[in-house]
Amino acid sequence: MNKAMAAIEQINYIKSPSSKIYKTLTTQEGLGNIWTPKLKVKPEIGFVNEFDFDEGYLTKMKVQELKENKWVLWECIDSDPEWVGTKVSFELSENENVTTIVLKHFDWKEMTDFYRWCNYNWAMFLWRLKKYCEK
Amino acid sequence: MNKAMAAIEQINYIKSPSSKIYKTLTTQEGLGNIWTPKLKVKPEIGFVNEFDFDEGYLTKMKVQELKENKWVLWECIDSDPEWVGTKVSFELSENENVTTIVLKHFDWKEMTDFYRWCNYNWAMFLWRLKKYCEK
Repeated sequence: MNKAMAAIEQINYIKSPSSKIYKTLTTQEGLGNIWTPKLKVKPEIGFVNEFDFDEGYLTKMKVQELKENKWVLWECIDSDPEWVGTKVSFELSENENVTTIVLKHFDWKEMTDFYRWCNYNWAMFLWRLKKYCEK
Repeated sequence: MNKAMAAIEQINYIKSPSSKIYKTLTTQEGLGNIWTPKLKVKPEIGFVNEFDFDEGYLTKMKVQELKENKWVLWECIDSDPEWVGTKVSFELSENENVTTIVLKHFDWKEMTDFYRWCNYNWAMFLWRLKKYCEK
């Protein structure tokens, strides 16, 4: 990660096994429940996940790295121009029935209102992930 | 703002006059509803707002700048050590019945898990601010 670029970093603590959170972040059913119902997702390195947020374009996230129950890395290959080339990672660690999740969305070219809006919205994503995995 | 330091930056769009949002951010009643019910707050430059989050210490925010319906700047003078010396600003701009709010929490010495947790929680703060001001 280039330190000169802007990055979104957040953490949340979820009372759920890391396996459930990992499954939510890597499957059609999971991301369909917490992000958008219009999507194509496979838990497979090299697969290009597609998300439709009714914005007139698709957001395409290539699955770069997967470590079961521990790590997910996507590279954005199509979306709003500010997102293209950025990467999103989810790092999971489970301890005493609580899973810590660190979300990073990095390699933003600059700090903009869209960055600020996405920062707010990644928190909403983590909140929905928590609700979904704790129920 | 020292660019080498870490900053939290978020934006939200609230269907409410900027005057209502400004009042919420500068009064005991407003912040008592959206942040913590245990607080001492005055809309007065130089006043030290106090917030008690039941963490065993008070968070003290000195009111540094106020521009009615436009701008609030606090300096943290006591709290968790990572917060001391940081600043929080709220910038409001109203257009066609929607107020844009830019929140910045800046001059963090470094990017830590506590930064990541506060980033997540500032989004929850903005979400509650939106709910409170839109109702």
